[in-house]
Amino acid sequence: MDKVRVAVIGATGYTGAELLRLLLGHPQVQVTRVVGHGKAGQPIAQVLPSFHGVLDGTIAAFDADDVRAHADVAFLALPHGAAAAVAKELRARGVLVLDLSADFRLHDRAVHAEWYGADHAPELAKDAVYGLPELHREALRTADLIAVPGCFPTASTLALAPLLRERLVLTKGLVIDAKTGVSGAGRSPLPNTHFPETSEGIRAYKAGGQHRHTPEIEQELSRVAGEAIRVVFTPHLVPMTRGILATAYAIAVDEGTTAARCTEAARALYAGSPVVSVLEPGSHPDTLWVRGSARAHVAYARDERTGTIVAMAAIDNLGKGASGQAVQCLNVRLGFNEDAGLRGVAMFP
Amino acid sequence: MDKVRVAVIGATGYTGAELLRLLLGHPQVQVTRVVGHGKAGQPIAQVLPSFHGVLDGTIAAFDADDVRAHADVAFLALPHGAAAAVAKELRARGVLVLDLSADFRLHDRAVHAEWYGADHAPELAKDAVYGLPELHREALRTADLIAVPGCFPTASTLALAPLLRERLVLTKGLVIDAKTGVSGAGRSPLPNTHFPETSEGIRAYKAGGQHRHTPEIEQELSRVAGEAIRVVFTPHLVPMTRGILATAYAIAVDEGTTAARCTEAARALYAGSPVVSVLEPGSHPDTLWVRGSARAHVAYARDERTGTIVAMAAIDNLGKGASGQAVQCLNVRLGFNEDAGLRGVAMFP
Amino acid sequence: MDKVRVAVIGATGYTGAELLRLLLGHPQVQVTRVVGHGKAGQPIAQVLPSFHGVLDGTIAAFDADDVRAHADVAFLALPHGAAAAVAKELRARGVLVLDLSADFRLHDRAVHAEWYGADHAPELAKDAVYGLPELHREALRTADLIAVPGCFPTASTLALAPLLRERLVLTKGLVIDAKTGVSGAGRSPLPNTHFPETSEGIRAYKAGGQHRHTPEIEQELSRVAGEAIRVVFTPHLVPMTRGILATAYAIAVDEGTTAARCTEAARALYAGSPVVSVLEPGSHPDTLWVRGSARAHVAYARDERTGTIVAMAAIDNLGKGASGQAVQCLNVRLGFNEDAGLRGVAMFP
Amino acid sequence: MDKVRVAVIGATGYTGAELLRLLLGHPQVQVTRVVGHGKAGQPIAQVLPSFHGVLDGTIAAFDADDVRAHADVAFLALPHGAAAAVAKELRARGVLVLDLSADFRLHDRAVHAEWYGADHAPELAKDAVYGLPELHREALRTADLIAVPGCFPTASTLALAPLLRERLVLTKGLVIDAKTGVSGAGRSPLPNTHFPETSEGIRAYKAGGQHRHTPEIEQELSRVAGEAIRVVFTPHLVPMTRGILATAYAIAVDEGTTAARCTEAARALYAGSPVVSVLEPGSHPDTLWVRGSARAHVAYARDERTGTIVAMAAIDNLGKGASGQAVQCLNVRLGFNEDAGLRGVAMFP
Repeated sequence: MDKVRVAVIGATGYTGAELLRLLLGHPQVQVTRVVGHGKAGQPIAQVLPSFHGVLDGTIAAFDADDVRAHADVAFLALPHGAAAAVAKELRARGVLVLDLSADFRLHDRAVHAEWYGADHAPELAKDAVYGLPELHREALRTADLIAVPGCFPTASTLALAPLLRERLVLTKGLVIDAKTGVSGAGRSPLPNTHFPETSEGIRAYKAGGQHRHTPEIEQELSRVAGEAIRVVFTPHLVPMTRGILATAYAIAVDEGTTAARCTEAARALYAGSPVVSVLEPGSHPDTLWVRGSARAHVAYARDERTGTIVAMAAIDNLGKGASGQAVQCLNVRLGFNEDAGLRGVAMFP
Repeated sequence: MDKVRVAVIGATGYTGAELLRLLLGHPQVQVTRVVGHGKAGQPIAQVLPSFHGVLDGTIAAFDADDVRAHADVAFLALPHGAAAAVAKELRARGVLVLDLSADFRLHDRAVHAEWYGADHAPELAKDAVYGLPELHREALRTADLIAVPGCFPTASTLALAPLLRERLVLTKGLVIDAKTGVSGAGRSPLPNTHFPETSEGIRAYKAGGQHRHTPEIEQELSRVAGEAIRVVFTPHLVPMTRGILATAYAIAVDEGTTAARCTEAARALYAGSPVVSVLEPGSHPDTLWVRGSARAHVAYARDERTGTIVAMAAIDNLGKGASGQAVQCLNVRLGFNEDAGLRGVAMFP
Repeated sequence: MDKVRVAVIGATGYTGAELLRLLLGHPQVQVTRVVGHGKAGQPIAQVLPSFHGVLDGTIAAFDADDVRAHADVAFLALPHGAAAAVAKELRARGVLVLDLSADFRLHDRAVHAEWYGADHAPELAKDAVYGLPELHREALRTADLIAVPGCFPTASTLALAPLLRERLVLTKGLVIDAKTGVSGAGRSPLPNTHFPETSEGIRAYKAGGQHRHTPEIEQELSRVAGEAIRVVFTPHLVPMTRGILATAYAIAVDEGTTAARCTEAARALYAGSPVVSVLEPGSHPDTLWVRGSARAHVAYARDERTGTIVAMAAIDNLGKGASGQAVQCLNVRLGFNEDAGLRGVAMFP
Repeated sequence: MDKVRVAVIGATGYTGAELLRLLLGHPQVQVTRVVGHGKAGQPIAQVLPSFHGVLDGTIAAFDADDVRAHADVAFLALPHGAAAAVAKELRARGVLVLDLSADFRLHDRAVHAEWYGADHAPELAKDAVYGLPELHREALRTADLIAVPGCFPTASTLALAPLLRERLVLTKGLVIDAKTGVSGAGRSPLPNTHFPETSEGIRAYKAGGQHRHTPEIEQELSRVAGEAIRVVFTPHLVPMTRGILATAYAIAVDEGTTAARCTEAARALYAGSPVVSVLEPGSHPDTLWVRGSARAHVAYARDERTGTIVAMAAIDNLGKGASGQAVQCLNVRLGFNEDAGLRGVAMFP
């Protein structure tokens, strides 16, 4: 069978590099274009030294016709705003687009405008499918524009969706305390990701519901719950490179919401997913256990003293939180095995 | 003025070593005995190489009469259970005891027994004063047995006490998501603190209200609130050596509970403390900013969308979370400047 | 084609776990036995949580007949001494053995005895082939017992062999300053790998030629040079999990030994290797660029002021330094593509 | 006694912040001016949050007359080039200057020009005294312009000077393999100090004698040896914030150069220094043991197989490698106790 020809647009950042890494190991995919912006014309291995001896060629500048000529599928690993413009050009040429930015994730475009400002492609947004296969598998099979979820929404939704779906917890009082590795902040050096001021310290950021992933989490949880959900969401920066741990707190509806019952609900919801493992009650998911993989580990505990469920989900922010999930979406869309190219086991230790 | 003669019992662990470091810089203190157990007879600098050229002498085995002969004050940096026995011997000899273990922290000894098992010194416990100067300064001035608080209770209480004291938040629905560096687990090597399985990963532990610091937090918050408080408390292990960040969530009683109002309440409560800084709303305390010091940074944010207050407190678990706080208690007890020996600025970076 | 049936003996340590990770992605291999010692009977995913949802089954106790019945090839990831005994049993049953311990690496058994003590399988040692494919590819094609090299010898030899082979540097005055991540010390927690005392510090160990990898380096370099070579070898422990960087210093024979000439010599020697990349002069190999892969990055600089060549080689100690190299040996031995199962790109970042 | 009034010029970088931290604890010093450039007008605690509640006031812009009016001593923590210009202005006004840049370290100004380009203050350079008290204590007592050494030269010189001074090793074939924490690269975020590409990797930089600290090391070792010395110097970037470990290799003149003999030589040379500890043979200095302090740990091993001495020195690059040493120089110059303000013990862990 011919391999599907794929372009990675924005290949020189972390999600782009991770896409390349995964796609090179995908048995049904051929990477035909590696597109960058500031680094166009440079050898790939100079910009991404891990590809020395693995991937020859140079970074190409973006040209929609050129991408169309050489690829049937494009992954966009671009900043929001920039992605919409590129998506429009590629969709106009019939290229299947998997966008890893926030440009098409929010269905309510007023909410999008509130959090992200100008809407660069409103006409496309209405057809975009949210790329969390565990919740949108059927819709993804025919999607031509896939909005790959954010890293925090992926972890948060995986943790809480089963509880809301089976009405095991109240829809009020949801708290999500999330912890991310530094690669989530991207490849551009900034004061707050400078090694000496990042290593050996932990801090919250955008506390008080200021983070843009908040409405995305609420969109998905609301859909599952069948009513409008509000969450308190606080991200924290952890001195490690990869990984997101979402620790979510929800009030049990009654005594029947045991950790075992939550585990059962999650296993039911994720039965069809090759990448989500629901661990036994008493387990504590560790980002180290999923690092470098597309997997998610989910587990539940119940605080008997207050009747609160602690829902935990660990992912690699560049794996299930971005590039791994994008490849999973491609697999669903093209009818491949859902974990094709994603069977790589987490790097341990 | 003669310096007060001090013994450090259990000097070879991390809190013991930090006590030595602080006490050597205290202008009114003289360390006269450095007591260890497994390492007795070894040179101090062999067990704690940071003291090469700084502190001569050897680790002594514990002998209550010898301590009494050479010291008026003893700091106990021992495991719980072991501490109570030593405290009993030293108190019988009239030595002022500052105990950094959990043995005397809980006033309700039934609760103590539930979480820690056998009570090794019930007759002493009733006179112990809880060593959080910001809440118990007056009682500490005459205490002969001081129960220095745990690291998590210190950070959690500092964050939430002002809100409960001024009834700015509801007493139900309190969630504390805490993050600690690895030194909090002590100096004994264990699989879960082995570098390759600790670095580059984050995980919760004892989720579901299993951590022994829970009743201690509740004791202090209940006292401040004037009613019985229950909290959901979940600690996490962060790949860094020092520091605790407590991120606490509380439901505002009404619109009047702004971040500014919470800040004001905290500044009022901590006005007399030389080591607690309440940062402006919009700030995010970072454990890096207090590392190596006895300071606490506290800040508040309000999530307008849900009416929730996010209360954050950062401390060094070995500083304000243990040894620094113990020295602060000594200062209060002996009428020294409250920050004597504690003016060392955090190591940055 | 039928897949070759493989057993991993000692699967619960880091090299064992890495073998499992690599072999599960090998297209011509089937892992049929996962053997441990202390953990026998436990589910694999309990001992190695990264295998949740990936690899079912339990850890088996070692039984030579059982291994023979289910596997044609065995990888031994055991401590030295223990490995020799197991190798003897398996070789007696005709199983192809790839041993990752030091038991069969040194051809001169007197030297082996000097550094490792009792020789547990002298009769086997004489037929063992040293598993550095870049230097022993032909011999490996027919080897039945392969002694996979140590991590430091791999990096050190890759850096220096081309220079000695083409007589570009003097054979006296060789200095190797090596830096390793902590996973090289194994999975057992020890004081010197305890997170708080490993993170944020660097130190040498076994300085003064005390490290057991010294004779192994000398054996290989002597063979290449055609004369007895002595090196100064000093390892250092670096606060990171994976990776070895060897920085080697050698005196150029004359002005003709430029960095470009060294690069050329290395490219000639490693032309047939799919996993060694010789970078341009001016490059500085980084262990981050090869982490999680079986690759080696090698580069050369010349210090004009002293006529010294600085030869640098970066590998993953668990990749090219252990498990990746073992799989490479298997591929050579069985006539597979030499990089079968090893095409995984380094995890970056 | 009146305290000496001190200005810190360039206080917002890491060496400036460390100077502030140390000087605030110095019993005979009063910090009267905190001068920055880009941050002038901002509160100190906003730029350096570790000073919240410790140091009020704002960052001042540089004004030589204002500094003169309020300070008798100025520490310059500025980039090279910029420092010379400021030093000239302050010396013209009679201010005692301790410059932490490279502008005045090299006595041979032709060598300075070769490595640093234009000489911004040649007339001042000839009177500058090199601020390594262990080698220049007498000259420092009357110096008005002190050139505080670089971090690598401090560690390298401390390790090798005793051996060259007593002619225990050959003057040819000296190799210095140095490892530094990331704070040595300064506070400006750069791609090569971005957390995700710095953590979990080690690499050399400026290999082949390209680092500007090379001539400084050679100047000091040549002076001690009484002949022109050339060294091979290779720095490496280690994933930690603070610390330098220099591992130096030198060929013993004969069998008499034992590790014990080297230790003795070092103890003789450093007998008068309150901050240098020479550890027993068999010890391996660890940067963790000196972190946050002004101390240096030095130790020696002998490789019997090759007759090579391994000389190791660990310092904190911001302590003995910069700010701590600057304060030590001040103490020598003003006749204070040499370790006044420097008695803080290393933070462990």
